[in-house]
Amino acid sequence: MKRLTFEPEHEQFRDSVIKFMQAEVAPHVERFHQQGMVDRELFLKAGEQGLLCTWADEKYGGAGIDDFRFEQIIIEENMRHGDIGFYINLHNDLVAPYIAKLGTDEQKARWMPGIVCGEKILAIAMTEPSTGSDLAGIRTRAEDKGDHWLLNGAKTYISNGILSDLVVVAARTDPESRYGIGLFVVERGMEGFERGRKLDKMGMKAQDTAELFFNDVKVPKANVLGDPSQGFGYLARFLAQERLVASIGFMATAQTAFDITLQYVKERRAFGKPIGAFQNTRFKMATMRAELDMAQTYVDQCVLLLNAGQLAAEDASAAKLLTSELEARVMDECVQLHGGAGYMTEYRICRMYTDARISRIFAGTSEIMREIIGRSLGLDERKLS
Amino acid sequence: MKRLTFEPEHEQFRDSVIKFMQAEVAPHVERFHQQGMVDRELFLKAGEQGLLCTWADEKYGGAGIDDFRFEQIIIEENMRHGDIGFYINLHNDLVAPYIAKLGTDEQKARWMPGIVCGEKILAIAMTEPSTGSDLAGIRTRAEDKGDHWLLNGAKTYISNGILSDLVVVAARTDPESRYGIGLFVVERGMEGFERGRKLDKMGMKAQDTAELFFNDVKVPKANVLGDPSQGFGYLARFLAQERLVASIGFMATAQTAFDITLQYVKERRAFGKPIGAFQNTRFKMATMRAELDMAQTYVDQCVLLLNAGQLAAEDASAAKLLTSELEARVMDECVQLHGGAGYMTEYRICRMYTDARISRIFAGTSEIMREIIGRSLGLDERKLS
Amino acid sequence: MKRLTFEPEHEQFRDSVIKFMQAEVAPHVERFHQQGMVDRELFLKAGEQGLLCTWADEKYGGAGIDDFRFEQIIIEENMRHGDIGFYINLHNDLVAPYIAKLGTDEQKARWMPGIVCGEKILAIAMTEPSTGSDLAGIRTRAEDKGDHWLLNGAKTYISNGILSDLVVVAARTDPESRYGIGLFVVERGMEGFERGRKLDKMGMKAQDTAELFFNDVKVPKANVLGDPSQGFGYLARFLAQERLVASIGFMATAQTAFDITLQYVKERRAFGKPIGAFQNTRFKMATMRAELDMAQTYVDQCVLLLNAGQLAAEDASAAKLLTSELEARVMDECVQLHGGAGYMTEYRICRMYTDARISRIFAGTSEIMREIIGRSLGLDERKLS
Amino acid sequence: MKRLTFEPEHEQFRDSVIKFMQAEVAPHVERFHQQGMVDRELFLKAGEQGLLCTWADEKYGGAGIDDFRFEQIIIEENMRHGDIGFYINLHNDLVAPYIAKLGTDEQKARWMPGIVCGEKILAIAMTEPSTGSDLAGIRTRAEDKGDHWLLNGAKTYISNGILSDLVVVAARTDPESRYGIGLFVVERGMEGFERGRKLDKMGMKAQDTAELFFNDVKVPKANVLGDPSQGFGYLARFLAQERLVASIGFMATAQTAFDITLQYVKERRAFGKPIGAFQNTRFKMATMRAELDMAQTYVDQCVLLLNAGQLAAEDASAAKLLTSELEARVMDECVQLHGGAGYMTEYRICRMYTDARISRIFAGTSEIMREIIGRSLGLDERKLS
Ligand SMILES: Cc1cc2nc3c(=O)[nH]c(=O)nc-3n(C[C@H](O)[C@H](O)[C@H](O)COP(=O)(O)OP(=O)(O)OC[C@H]3O[C@@H](n4cnc5c(N)ncnc54)[C@H](O)[C@@H]3O)c2cc1C
Ligand SMILES: Cc1cc2nc3c(=O)[nH]c(=O)nc-3n(C[C@H](O)[C@H](O)[C@H](O)COP(=O)(O)OP(=O)(O)OC[C@H]3O[C@@H](n4cnc5c(N)ncnc54)[C@H](O)[C@@H]3O)c2cc1C
Ligand SMILES: Cc1cc2nc3c(=O)[nH]c(=O)nc-3n(C[C@H](O)[C@H](O)[C@H](O)COP(=O)(O)OP(=O)(O)OC[C@H]3O[C@@H](n4cnc5c(N)ncnc54)[C@H](O)[C@@H]3O)c2cc1C
Ligand SMILES: Cc1cc2nc3c(=O)[nH]c(=O)nc-3n(C[C@H](O)[C@H](O)[C@H](O)COP(=O)(O)OP(=O)(O)OC[C@H]3O[C@@H](n4cnc5c(N)ncnc54)[C@H](O)[C@@H]3O)c2cc1C
Repeated sequence: MKRLTFEPEHEQFRDSVIKFMQAEVAPHVERFHQQGMVDRELFLKAGEQGLLCTWADEKYGGAGIDDFRFEQIIIEENMRHGDIGFYINLHNDLVAPYIAKLGTDEQKARWMPGIVCGEKILAIAMTEPSTGSDLAGIRTRAEDKGDHWLLNGAKTYISNGILSDLVVVAARTDPESRYGIGLFVVERGMEGFERGRKLDKMGMKAQDTAELFFNDVKVPKANVLGDPSQGFGYLARFLAQERLVASIGFMATAQTAFDITLQYVKERRAFGKPIGAFQNTRFKMATMRAELDMAQTYVDQCVLLLNAGQLAAEDASAAKLLTSELEARVMDECVQLHGGAGYMTEYRICRMYTDARISRIFAGTSEIMREIIGRSLGLDERKLS
Repeated sequence: MKRLTFEPEHEQFRDSVIKFMQAEVAPHVERFHQQGMVDRELFLKAGEQGLLCTWADEKYGGAGIDDFRFEQIIIEENMRHGDIGFYINLHNDLVAPYIAKLGTDEQKARWMPGIVCGEKILAIAMTEPSTGSDLAGIRTRAEDKGDHWLLNGAKTYISNGILSDLVVVAARTDPESRYGIGLFVVERGMEGFERGRKLDKMGMKAQDTAELFFNDVKVPKANVLGDPSQGFGYLARFLAQERLVASIGFMATAQTAFDITLQYVKERRAFGKPIGAFQNTRFKMATMRAELDMAQTYVDQCVLLLNAGQLAAEDASAAKLLTSELEARVMDECVQLHGGAGYMTEYRICRMYTDARISRIFAGTSEIMREIIGRSLGLDERKLS
Repeated sequence: MKRLTFEPEHEQFRDSVIKFMQAEVAPHVERFHQQGMVDRELFLKAGEQGLLCTWADEKYGGAGIDDFRFEQIIIEENMRHGDIGFYINLHNDLVAPYIAKLGTDEQKARWMPGIVCGEKILAIAMTEPSTGSDLAGIRTRAEDKGDHWLLNGAKTYISNGILSDLVVVAARTDPESRYGIGLFVVERGMEGFERGRKLDKMGMKAQDTAELFFNDVKVPKANVLGDPSQGFGYLARFLAQERLVASIGFMATAQTAFDITLQYVKERRAFGKPIGAFQNTRFKMATMRAELDMAQTYVDQCVLLLNAGQLAAEDASAAKLLTSELEARVMDECVQLHGGAGYMTEYRICRMYTDARISRIFAGTSEIMREIIGRSLGLDERKLS
Repeated sequence: MKRLTFEPEHEQFRDSVIKFMQAEVAPHVERFHQQGMVDRELFLKAGEQGLLCTWADEKYGGAGIDDFRFEQIIIEENMRHGDIGFYINLHNDLVAPYIAKLGTDEQKARWMPGIVCGEKILAIAMTEPSTGSDLAGIRTRAEDKGDHWLLNGAKTYISNGILSDLVVVAARTDPESRYGIGLFVVERGMEGFERGRKLDKMGMKAQDTAELFFNDVKVPKANVLGDPSQGFGYLARFLAQERLVASIGFMATAQTAFDITLQYVKERRAFGKPIGAFQNTRFKMATMRAELDMAQTYVDQCVLLLNAGQLAAEDASAAKLLTSELEARVMDECVQLHGGAGYMTEYRICRMYTDARISRIFAGTSEIMREIIGRSLGLDERKLS
């Protein structure tokens, strides 16, 4: 189905993003995969091109565009023409908003320009070895030492873990309260802040995921985001956007996989005809096409709702849940339709398949999404009895 | 998710439709089920209330409203507060358009007023005992006898078969050509036009489905719709709207089943708590909620496209395919969540389940939908080789 | 796959059962459906033919055959050539064992002969309006009045509810303990024992399901089965067999539906060929064939384990869970492959579809099966923490 | 469910196989993965231990055991305690039988001893860059040059491609006939026989998969297996065993994944309890347990049928189809239940997931399995019309 939410100015922007991805990402993908992460310079180039935080205030170098469709386009074209390893959306849409929306003027002045020009790469560190879904279970501690906070703990599975210059770290500030959590900006080079191993993953080979360690890191008070007891609420507040961002990406990879496969089944032959001529193939492609259109319509609608400040948490969770499940089905079918080639790394679909397995796990697992939606229906285990 | 395509005037109209359904349909549902069809008078009442063909020209008694959302509302509220057996959408949106769009001024003047006021109930007869999906395989013959056409053949599974006053009949006009088909309006009382049995169905007990027989029926030339060799093309032309109409209905029944079940799982208790408190229940309800929202967004978007004259056949097929499959999943889960009660006719969900089994079969089976979408992707068995 | 567990003597027995079903059940199915239950005489005829409780002791008129494959054959052929409404397996395998295994010699002498000859039709009443899955939640009370027990309460969804002469009723004997339940044999004609409505169901139209009421019924002490405080344990003990019995039936109906449909897709034509020639059809039939073979092998193996006294509760639950889910998929596909005919009551597949919807609900819902299997894995919510 | 087909002598053998895998494979898995294949010596060690072709005649060094359960055990324990990269079953059960069953006494005397002791590693080369499923579409040509055959062509996706000493190559011997194919044993070192790249795959990192090229290879007549025009029939003849062998492996990996995950969900905690205590987890584990038991029963039964020489091709195809689909579901669920850890290569489940994606593709894709089963039902596209 023709997409309906974009205007000519978006399409123009899309063209420029495509060009950027084709020129600056695509030719290096193989190398990025080998080195396990993208080049730092890529962020600088993206900054130059105006692709970092299009929404950021002009005084920080941004374009001040209050229309998430531009960010959507960046995500989509990075997935299609760039590489999922270039985690530009984490930078733009998942972490920068914490600073832009919770930060003081001083903090913003200090960090936003670097963020927008790509000098300061961002990460956010919530997950720990012993807790992920259950954010309130984190053990990393921040103790108030008067003029600074003393940070101790370990984080894991942190995206942009090695590349990042600024890390928003969630830490327990009140050992008594399950929800007493604060957000701290830890900067590259702070004493006691160590990066662990770059973790070896099933897919997303160019995306840098690492362990981080904090041993008596003195975080200046000036590096606290908002109220140090309200971190849990802050995290919850940004979740709708985060999940929509994830969904946008899942749709883009799924659509790309579909296109690649449509091409493939028209060309690959067996038993005297293109495999696309078998009814089984046609039916599978048709079903995917229908499901992709339906899901895309929903996601595009969610983007408009986000623009209007009306995207409910449960609707974003629904988007995240369903698009990640759809992406998984699509990847699986597309590999299958490739036959043996689908199992060979040299075929893009092979990599996309392993890349995609993460989607139902991070940014809140499918199970957690169901919990959230269930609660919005009044089906809250803790309240029903 | 809040629905986004309705304006205040639609909501006002919705209220009046709800009132109509609650007053004129709901109290009689049990009797309609017993008698195997609704009362003829119901169409008259709907006509009076302005619920028949809101789009029809004012000169025929219609409201001339060129906005399909009003029809959508009628379908939705009939499903929720009325009964699926009241096949008002067949009349309004599936058959009347043939007359309104293909009919001559004379034909429209002759039939539209009765259609709009509910005096003339409509049906369309394509399917035959030996052919359904394969419309081009019909055997009913119309022979050109100079001043009339001589109609011979049998139709089956015809909705409003017993109630109908005007039946649009597809018949082969050119025995040589697979696609040489014409559309004929057969009127109640024409000699040689017989109704067969009212067929006994799995569900939709108040919906009248019958066999029709045509034995040497002389159909006046004035009763031919358009060009008698172009019927196949005409049928194809109206299909997008027909499939969207079907989808609207499926969504409405699915949403209703969901609501009934949400209520039920909050009230029904087992092992000391509402069954809605079990994680399995919560997850199933959450998944349905998400899927319903996504599908509804798509269908609502399709209605806007239809309004704009831009709904592609394959998009309507996608809607029909996916909403009928979703409806089926929802009905199945909802029965399951009702436990033994779900199997008892006195519970509405029990009837909704059997009603819904038809959705993947009529108005084009799921398999035929996949064929159509597949073809739009260039995956046409007949062309690929 | 050829079935491997039957010997020639079983096949011979199978032939005689088929003849019985064809002669005594098949010709009356339509009437049974109309009257909402089978004729009482059918049980007598089955008794005469030696089809009631083949396992029962010869002194009670049984054949004393300690090989459940004979019972399996009766169930299978009733499903295929008879009618699911003839609930002979409830009588033979679900209720009679309570009397045969828990009953005293006196009780057996009193009841077994009538059970084996078909004079005394059996039912078991556990479920109540407010509790089904949660058996320990029943409210029917039995008070010890010295020489008798005073029974008060209501049961619902009781199979053979109207026909039955002897009803095994579960009732709470200890109001203090959640598990203090006894089993009482209530006999036709006892004062205060009333039958309620025959319930109208989605399917199984010839199977009699009713409400039962007990108002101050004086149940003689001689009618208590075993220890009146141990009923919960007794019920649990027979469950493995009950679930296997259910599975045997589900497989038989699913296999029958498959066979009917295989025939249909070879005969029904569309687009110039049998619909069985479409790849989609072939693939669906092939998948069903494979799944049926796999499930049948498992069930047949379970029967041998039951014979050997080694069928674990969780394995029987697994059989019940998977065969009912498979039956549901098969029925759904088979209806779909019938097109419009699948929705018409005159086609057997239509009725089989609605019959089968109960399978995932009664004899323990799929959810309860999962609980049981989960617990056998050490995943017990109440114990893990 | 307790498995029922093994005797004490099998269990004893199983113990010894486990010890072998733990001692000779497990400690080297990491290295094997790194080097992209196992050590050649591993085959020698397996030979010494008597694990190569237990069925082979004693005169060639085998144990002459005509009971496939021993081979089943080797496959199972290699999957559990060894590594899927050690493709011992290809050697033992997929390729060696061609030589043992089609070979002349001279050929067997020449090759079997080396095969049984592990000096000669085997491969079979059917697939080509442009054809896989459609075996009859191969282009590799063998021309009869009087005293030798001249072999030209290219093969791809060949397992043990680099390691192999003897490769059974399918080549077209009759350019006129679609089925005129012969089987040729190409030996390491023959002139014109080149190995291409070791292919980089999604998973099975220690399994060697390569391209092979044949440029004017002179294959002596003494290296032809059977009748050089009957290769197609030969390949078909061995397929039942090949597919069962595959199924045995899929079940073993799926069972292992299940066990790993059961352990994990009991230990990993979230929200104050083991994640195994959540109903969603319990239900998923329970469903897997049930499905695994059912499928294992079927596979074990198929092994007995193979022993009895009665395993039908379609039953083996059913096993291959369903066990590979089950394995896929199990792997997917198990990764999901691991959360983020499931995406990290250091967790075994992560690797098992990517290993398993091949199962529905090689040894005949799921689509081809459905074709075969469909045909056995009389649903043959080419015959129905
Ligand atoms: C590639 C990658 C990148 C990541 N990037 C980041 C990052 O940048 N920053 C960051 O902070 N984190 C990051 N994460 C961590 C990610 O958010 C967590 O992995 C995820 O939230 C799941 O947490 P977990 O791994 O601890 O799984 P667990 O919470 O241990 O969950 C294990 C399983 O239990 C289930 N489960 C948990 N609770 C329930 C429940 N109540 N009911 C039912 N089931 C339940 C889960 O759904 C899952 O299936 C990343 C992870 C990966 C793999
Ligand atoms: C309650 C009800 C109301 C109806 N109302 C009307 C009405 O008002 N007017 C009217 O004209 N008709 C009506 N119909 C008929 C309905 O449109 C047809 O039943 C439907 O189109 C399917 O046709 P069929 O029943 O002949 O099935 P078939 O065409 O015989 O199909 C049988 C099966 O084969 C499959 N199949 C067919 N072709 C292919 C293919 N190429 N590839 C793969 N699979 C294929 C189908 O999907 C189906 O699963 C009604 C039917 C019902 C049940
Ligand atoms: C045709 C028919 C014949 C019957 N025959 C008999 C008979 O002869 N004798 C007799 O005693 N009974 C009989 N029954 C009753 C039958 O056994 C019950 O209907 C069944 O056990 C379910 O109980 P319920 O209807 O109370 O459902 P509920 O227990 O109310 O269950 C409602 C829903 O909640 C789910 N649920 C319940 N507990 C949990 C949990 N812990 N976790 C997750 N989900 C849960 C259920 O799975 C179901 O989906 C019959 C029922 C029918 C429909
Ligand atoms: C790791 C690995 C190891 C292998 N080892 C060996 C080996 O040792 N020796 C060897 O000879 N080969 C080997 N193969 C090849 C393997 O057998 C083939 O990949 C497989 O048979 C599929 O063939 P293909 O890749 O050409 O897919 P294709 O035949 O091109 O199939 C592509 C898609 O079309 C579908 N398709 C094809 N025909 C039909 C149809 N009629 N109807 C519907 N759909 C259809 C397929 O199911 C698949 O989804 C191996 C492959 C891999 C990946």
